[in-house]
Amino acid sequence: MKALIVDNSGTDPVMKMGEHPTPEHGESELFVKIKATALNRADLMQKAGKYPPPEGESPILGLEMAGTVISAGSKVSKFKKGDRVYGLLGGGGYAEYCVIHEDLAMPIPDNLSFEEAAAIPEVFLTAYQAISWLGELKQNETILIHAGASGVGTAAIQISKKLYNAKIAVTAGSDKKLKLCESLGADLLINYKKSDYSERIKSNFGKNKINLILDFVGAPYWFKNVDVLSTDGCIVYLAMLGGTKIDNMSLVPILRKRITIKGSTLRNRPLEYKIRLVSDFQAHVSKYIGSGDIHPVIHSTYDWHQAEEAHQLMGNNQNAGKIILTGM
Amino acid sequence: MKALIVDNSGTDPVMKMGEHPTPEHGESELFVKIKATALNRADLMQKAGKYPPPEGESPILGLEMAGTVISAGSKVSKFKKGDRVYGLLGGGGYAEYCVIHEDLAMPIPDNLSFEEAAAIPEVFLTAYQAISWLGELKQNETILIHAGASGVGTAAIQISKKLYNAKIAVTAGSDKKLKLCESLGADLLINYKKSDYSERIKSNFGKNKINLILDFVGAPYWFKNVDVLSTDGCIVYLAMLGGTKIDNMSLVPILRKRITIKGSTLRNRPLEYKIRLVSDFQAHVSKYIGSGDIHPVIHSTYDWHQAEEAHQLMGNNQNAGKIILTGM
Repeated sequence: MKALIVDNSGTDPVMKMGEHPTPEHGESELFVKIKATALNRADLMQKAGKYPPPEGESPILGLEMAGTVISAGSKVSKFKKGDRVYGLLGGGGYAEYCVIHEDLAMPIPDNLSFEEAAAIPEVFLTAYQAISWLGELKQNETILIHAGASGVGTAAIQISKKLYNAKIAVTAGSDKKLKLCESLGADLLINYKKSDYSERIKSNFGKNKINLILDFVGAPYWFKNVDVLSTDGCIVYLAMLGGTKIDNMSLVPILRKRITIKGSTLRNRPLEYKIRLVSDFQAHVSKYIGSGDIHPVIHSTYDWHQAEEAHQLMGNNQNAGKIILTGM
Repeated sequence: MKALIVDNSGTDPVMKMGEHPTPEHGESELFVKIKATALNRADLMQKAGKYPPPEGESPILGLEMAGTVISAGSKVSKFKKGDRVYGLLGGGGYAEYCVIHEDLAMPIPDNLSFEEAAAIPEVFLTAYQAISWLGELKQNETILIHAGASGVGTAAIQISKKLYNAKIAVTAGSDKKLKLCESLGADLLINYKKSDYSERIKSNFGKNKINLILDFVGAPYWFKNVDVLSTDGCIVYLAMLGGTKIDNMSLVPILRKRITIKGSTLRNRPLEYKIRLVSDFQAHVSKYIGSGDIHPVIHSTYDWHQAEEAHQLMGNNQNAGKIILTGM
């Protein structure tokens, strides 16, 4: 089959259209014609050789897809040929075909195109896992979502508002991105280039008022994050794009405020964990996707031959929402 | 009533026998003649002015007691005059009498004296909360308990072994203390003065094998704790006696190993939380106390007129297990 292959022969690694063995489905798996996939930061890292695929996963980039079932394994009971499905992949989305365990696949709601569906799995499951499972957000609590206009950010805003009626503060680097966050339900919009987010939060919400923080920045935000957290507050780290080293770090607030700090990734979790997450997501979030109350946020769609351009857009932080590849 | 009062008139604060207003019970509370109480490190901190009592709590030291019910509020249904009870206090244990919410009081099993019962509430509830609620230890997992011969340590060893059949590594500062830990069920005994605990754990259990760490030391153990933790491992901080500042702290393992860090105290939790904890403790641990399978570890018993001596013993880390005050 055709697939985008990382070429390391030049100074920088680039993707080139090439050939890769077509995967074969196991007895509980679906064989799917991919119609669309979406970019994740992990793709850029994997291309740069910094995020090798977990053992047993496809070396091809791409952590999610939407497509049509071509055939199903002998033990598959939930889907049949022709069904429109979307879901998480351990790898292999930048290709014509993929296989996916039937319990990881979800039926695409009628109101969504393949492109829209492909924008959902990774960021919405990550946001749901971070908010509901790890952060244990409760009704009417207050959440701070950094990078609010990112894929996970836009998903997190909608999930916290719709499922938990949360009070939501977001940070982003442009007023245009903040406008998007506001349209999704964010209450306090903070342009981190123009103001200090901890001061803005304290003056708007009060001291020690944030119950949960979703952070992708890491070390540069440590002290301010801890400062705005409430008693029994929690920080969930999903990335650390701004740095990882903290000097003069104090453990005191962890004890005094009874803080919880959690780091999480989704890709390298065991299959059984992902299946439970997908099942829980379908029980609690999918109805809102089907009704249009929660929707994917798409920044732009590229033909997969232009995947390099799409990667550059993401690398330069120019996107607000997901970048889609299609045309497989 | 008679009570030990902190006297700050000299260079160092000391406790002196004095008079304090006898507390009056509310409608859901018990009025109890205290027969024994036990020391906690928090008492030493409070005496030094570093750990003020939570609002509404007695200013008298003492976070636990065992005694006899003298009278009960009009809404009390679980206890009656003459019952032997023990439980957590927000303060006020170093006195002749106390009041306690009936849902925080537990009946003393027949096999325990007042002195033995007084040794249980604070450390066993703290250990249970840390292991079961915060650390979420699972059957046959591996736990590292620092300060294994401390009050919480001796409780934690027994709870992890009896409830979770855990593989247990402990650290302590003397071979005598380690002997005690072994008798309670510890599998790997590490004298931190003689060897590097992370090396000992890696050579005995393997790399990245500790699912849960109970830590009272803080900053000096940060790097080694993170080093021995497994994927999805957790550190629960109950104190930070060795220091709180970490230089060159890296967030990387938190993300890479999906680590959870939690800080916790028990005293300043809301009443409703403590009631749930006591209720859960009675459902899962009390039967083992009643059967003698889990038992308090008492280092020594002092008449409460000798409380200052008892404090010195604890301040010098000379105790293995609890120090009891009696004779009220």
